[in-house]
Amino acid sequence: MSKQVQFEHVARVPLNNIKIKDDFWSYYINLVRSVVVPYQWEALNDRIEAAEPSGAIRNFKIAAGLEEGEFYGMVFQDSDVAKWLEAVSYLLESQPDPELERTADEVIEIIAKAQQEDGYLNTYYTLKEPGRRWSNLAECHELYCAGHMIEAGVAYYRATGKRKLLDIVSRLADHIDSVFGTEPGKLQGYDGHQEIKLALVKLYHATGNERYLRLAQYFVEQRGQKPNFYEMQLLERGGESHWTGIDHAFDLEHTQSHALVREQEKAVGHAVREVYMLTGMVDIAAETKDESLLAACERLWDNIVSRQMYITGAIGSMAQGEAFSFDYDLPNDTAYAETCASIGLIFFAHRMLRTSQKAEYADVLERALYNTVVAGMSRDGKRFFYVNPQEVDPKACSGANHKFDHIKPVRQEWFGCACCPPNVARLLSSLGEYIYMVQGDTLYTHLYISGEAELSVGGSTVRVKQSSNYPWDGRIKLEVHPEQPGEFAVALRIPGWCKNASLSVNNETYPLNGQTIQNGYVRVARIWQQGDIVELTLDMPVERMRSHPLVRGNAGKVALQRGPLVYCLEQADNGANLHGLILPAEAKLETKYEADLLDGIVVIMAEGLREDAASWPGGLYSSESATALREEKVTFIPYYAWANRGEGEMSVWVREKL
Amino acid sequence: MSKQVQFEHVARVPLNNIKIKDDFWSYYINLVRSVVVPYQWEALNDRIEAAEPSGAIRNFKIAAGLEEGEFYGMVFQDSDVAKWLEAVSYLLESQPDPELERTADEVIEIIAKAQQEDGYLNTYYTLKEPGRRWSNLAECHELYCAGHMIEAGVAYYRATGKRKLLDIVSRLADHIDSVFGTEPGKLQGYDGHQEIKLALVKLYHATGNERYLRLAQYFVEQRGQKPNFYEMQLLERGGESHWTGIDHAFDLEHTQSHALVREQEKAVGHAVREVYMLTGMVDIAAETKDESLLAACERLWDNIVSRQMYITGAIGSMAQGEAFSFDYDLPNDTAYAETCASIGLIFFAHRMLRTSQKAEYADVLERALYNTVVAGMSRDGKRFFYVNPQEVDPKACSGANHKFDHIKPVRQEWFGCACCPPNVARLLSSLGEYIYMVQGDTLYTHLYISGEAELSVGGSTVRVKQSSNYPWDGRIKLEVHPEQPGEFAVALRIPGWCKNASLSVNNETYPLNGQTIQNGYVRVARIWQQGDIVELTLDMPVERMRSHPLVRGNAGKVALQRGPLVYCLEQADNGANLHGLILPAEAKLETKYEADLLDGIVVIMAEGLREDAASWPGGLYSSESATALREEKVTFIPYYAWANRGEGEMSVWVREKL
Repeated sequence: MSKQVQFEHVARVPLNNIKIKDDFWSYYINLVRSVVVPYQWEALNDRIEAAEPSGAIRNFKIAAGLEEGEFYGMVFQDSDVAKWLEAVSYLLESQPDPELERTADEVIEIIAKAQQEDGYLNTYYTLKEPGRRWSNLAECHELYCAGHMIEAGVAYYRATGKRKLLDIVSRLADHIDSVFGTEPGKLQGYDGHQEIKLALVKLYHATGNERYLRLAQYFVEQRGQKPNFYEMQLLERGGESHWTGIDHAFDLEHTQSHALVREQEKAVGHAVREVYMLTGMVDIAAETKDESLLAACERLWDNIVSRQMYITGAIGSMAQGEAFSFDYDLPNDTAYAETCASIGLIFFAHRMLRTSQKAEYADVLERALYNTVVAGMSRDGKRFFYVNPQEVDPKACSGANHKFDHIKPVRQEWFGCACCPPNVARLLSSLGEYIYMVQGDTLYTHLYISGEAELSVGGSTVRVKQSSNYPWDGRIKLEVHPEQPGEFAVALRIPGWCKNASLSVNNETYPLNGQTIQNGYVRVARIWQQGDIVELTLDMPVERMRSHPLVRGNAGKVALQRGPLVYCLEQADNGANLHGLILPAEAKLETKYEADLLDGIVVIMAEGLREDAASWPGGLYSSESATALREEKVTFIPYYAWANRGEGEMSVWVREKL
Repeated sequence: MSKQVQFEHVARVPLNNIKIKDDFWSYYINLVRSVVVPYQWEALNDRIEAAEPSGAIRNFKIAAGLEEGEFYGMVFQDSDVAKWLEAVSYLLESQPDPELERTADEVIEIIAKAQQEDGYLNTYYTLKEPGRRWSNLAECHELYCAGHMIEAGVAYYRATGKRKLLDIVSRLADHIDSVFGTEPGKLQGYDGHQEIKLALVKLYHATGNERYLRLAQYFVEQRGQKPNFYEMQLLERGGESHWTGIDHAFDLEHTQSHALVREQEKAVGHAVREVYMLTGMVDIAAETKDESLLAACERLWDNIVSRQMYITGAIGSMAQGEAFSFDYDLPNDTAYAETCASIGLIFFAHRMLRTSQKAEYADVLERALYNTVVAGMSRDGKRFFYVNPQEVDPKACSGANHKFDHIKPVRQEWFGCACCPPNVARLLSSLGEYIYMVQGDTLYTHLYISGEAELSVGGSTVRVKQSSNYPWDGRIKLEVHPEQPGEFAVALRIPGWCKNASLSVNNETYPLNGQTIQNGYVRVARIWQQGDIVELTLDMPVERMRSHPLVRGNAGKVALQRGPLVYCLEQADNGANLHGLILPAEAKLETKYEADLLDGIVVIMAEGLREDAASWPGGLYSSESATALREEKVTFIPYYAWANRGEGEMSVWVREKL
């Protein structure tokens, strides 16, 4: 257990106190507001012709008795509506929008009518299998959907002060509490796709009702108890499975129910479930000051980030089960690396930061955010990656070799299983939550995102204005405006990727050393005056990143990173057959800002080498001398921006010539 | 169409005229006789405790009315008995064995009783789906099983002169001929898993009945006709599929029924089916002097060997469908590379050699034989590889990453689906067929396997005695003993892997040049006397083999080959983490015969480099300098011998430092 752990309450910063004005992020947030959320609304209402229908709103209308028809879609279709409502809530919290709010109110009216007398709320079971509630927890997502609706209810209440959805989800949570528990007559089950625990902690915060916290605790402790609840339910169902060809109830690791959560040593199974579980576990550990539970979270954090995470902050090394595989198994071309899993990793990192302000957590958060999450969405906000490969050969996809069936070389429109797009929307619309954190008398700056914030530090209000050209430039300026002069600390993260940093306060150099830097944060404690200026300079040279020697697929390869951005090679810049490119160890890496490329990016260029296919003597194998190498300019672009110029090869890792 | 094509009949060399006395091969052939065939007999009779039951003999007994019970096993279970009988036939043809022959006769008696009144013979349909014969040709292997039984019938007749099984399979073929065809009232279908065409040509040779050749021709020409027969049958079955989760009737490429065989441009689908198809096509083309059909075979041959073949002579790049994938897609760690597919490739190569004596065909035959086929069996003859990976990390198998589910790091006992072990047995027991070939007045020596042979060349008998220490040594001695002095030619293959060869006849140097070497064979035409001696010396240095630049997985890597043998690294010699080993381009490659290692092999040793994991600065990714390299001796063993010393990593390809 780390000594830095503290269980003091870290208050959430309301989004209306955070104004993001950032060249990089404002684009995406505006995209969420103007394109993604409206587009998703159309999709939820089955009005996107090119995409598979969603049925999600219609399911609620049918359950509400407002329309006739049958349930359509996945067993977790309800969650798309919940995630959309949650994203809408964050947008409204950041900036009023009466029309959007009216639309949301209308949806909430429908949801209210779809809720059953006893508080139960799930359109799949209500419409399709009315008598079989809670009969297949391992596979059927009832508690997952409930969790998302609870998150939406809390977010909408915070944004608008309106209680209607909060009351709906409170009744739903009360109902769940009446069904589950160790008391006689209750189901001793727990959530299949994890999500509800973190949602119940939010509901506890919003309502102050400790029953929700205790229910979340129950779900954590019950998981993995023997005999296994899912196996018992499977027997009760006579072996019946919801999904054809998959049986999650047989694969206990898939649902992290193979062992008690406190005893789990490695991240296993479905990656999104794992990180949603861990997010909830940290929340509960923090609320209940449960050090051993937190120790389990730290252990699994270490396993993920030091053995099972792609350099882009993606997780989930295999397609089958959308799952973690094993330590150091990080294949580039068959990665699952789901966008939602990186979003879950961000949630987990953010919760870890709340208990322990270590830059390591924010580093991972930043890595996942600036690389995988942004890569998940096209520059026009209309197409999404579900899976984020680290290397793509379009020739290999679409059945040419079935091990790549899950890999799409271009982003897809709204999916039949549409978890990722609304997840991106709710994360980006709540991005303001992740920049600052106040703990005691210290104002932590985790992310370098320009804008203004009003924060309560040690009882008084402090206005902070951050400006930079991050992630392209490492010079960051922080103007501090306390209501009145006061003593407190401002802590700024020195990212793990930064080897040289300097800081000045009101133009005076502030020493960066073991005294001033703690856990990766430089802490400036002083009496702050209106308009004090902190300037942080993070050197941002291009770094050649290498992987741990046990990462088989990256042996002999490097990836380039500059600041928080991981780079990649794309066919659009470098032609086909990227595997034939080599970066000499001594090659100079030059950077250039290209204003017209991909809405403005810094590219990295180098004198590389290319295997000259023309020199190949012929045949499939040859004992003639190695293929000749010729000099060729290679160009790297940020990974997040790939696949915005048509279909082509991409590779994060490139062979290095020593 | 190549000018070297000739459609003259190339007579089969009876196995009793070939005595193999070869250090390398006699071991395996004795193993087949003393271990594999007896073991398989036990397996077919369900007497191997550690293995899944076969049920194959019992199915025939039940169908024969000799036992009560239900069909057990795969839909193609009958073929295991047929392949066993075929292997037994070759053993008997090579060397009498009254007890083995008695056992075979007993099996044949059972088969006779299991045959239906109308000639139909298939225990699955007879016992399990009696009313549904020929209703699912795409998936259900009736014609495949028939083909194997026909091959057995022909082989047993040749070996023993006994007609009983030949008569059985002739009646079966007559029945099939009465069912299939373009005439009104006949089924216009064709074989799903291909095999029967090559078998029917053998039956035609054995019986002289041209109907069998015409039936084989019909099956070739009917394949891929529109509307597709399999799709029509699928409709007739109401979409019902024999296999859960797979529907071969929907995937026309899987069965090579997507186009007329003459119009197929690339090898696609199930690899064994493809090469069995091509074997039959060459046979038919040769018999009917059909140049355009042979041209299709040549085109598909080129596609396979120049774009879709592993260096070990293995084919089939993907597990799903056990299939070809696409040009230059040759992943090492997820290869399917089925032993049976390489055996089929040997059949195909052998038939191509009959029509056109080009060393290229024998080179591929040799490559598949000395590497994949031998690797398919353990040194004790009791365990088999179905799948032959080119790289294995045992940690990754057994579900750790599901893309490796088909990869076994150690050989398995008799399988539930037991195609490979009996296929290895029938190939090795008939190995004598592949060494020599007489075409006109030329005696071709394709393979360098020591022993004695009695061959009919230009009407007179020639005894040939071959001796060498091949594949370890390239000095080969051929003693030629014609019955009486006579003029004919002896042609010896100069393998494609050999860059320097020399030849002497009775100690006089024989020039090797464009005049004497044609299509890779040096042709010595003269009046041969009793005891003339030809000595061929094939230089056999270690060669660094590289792959075509479009083979993504082998970029920057080399494999070592010496003579016909491809080498590999094994953990037993080099420790774990083989991916951390590097072979400098200038490293000297030393060979050493190790008499006590793996029953005597030539190992290759080199001063290699190893990434020093201890120098890794920590973490999963780092921008510190590249991992330090330290010198380390690396040892390569022949690929065929891998996985005979317990479970461990293996890799054919190793990174090269230029």
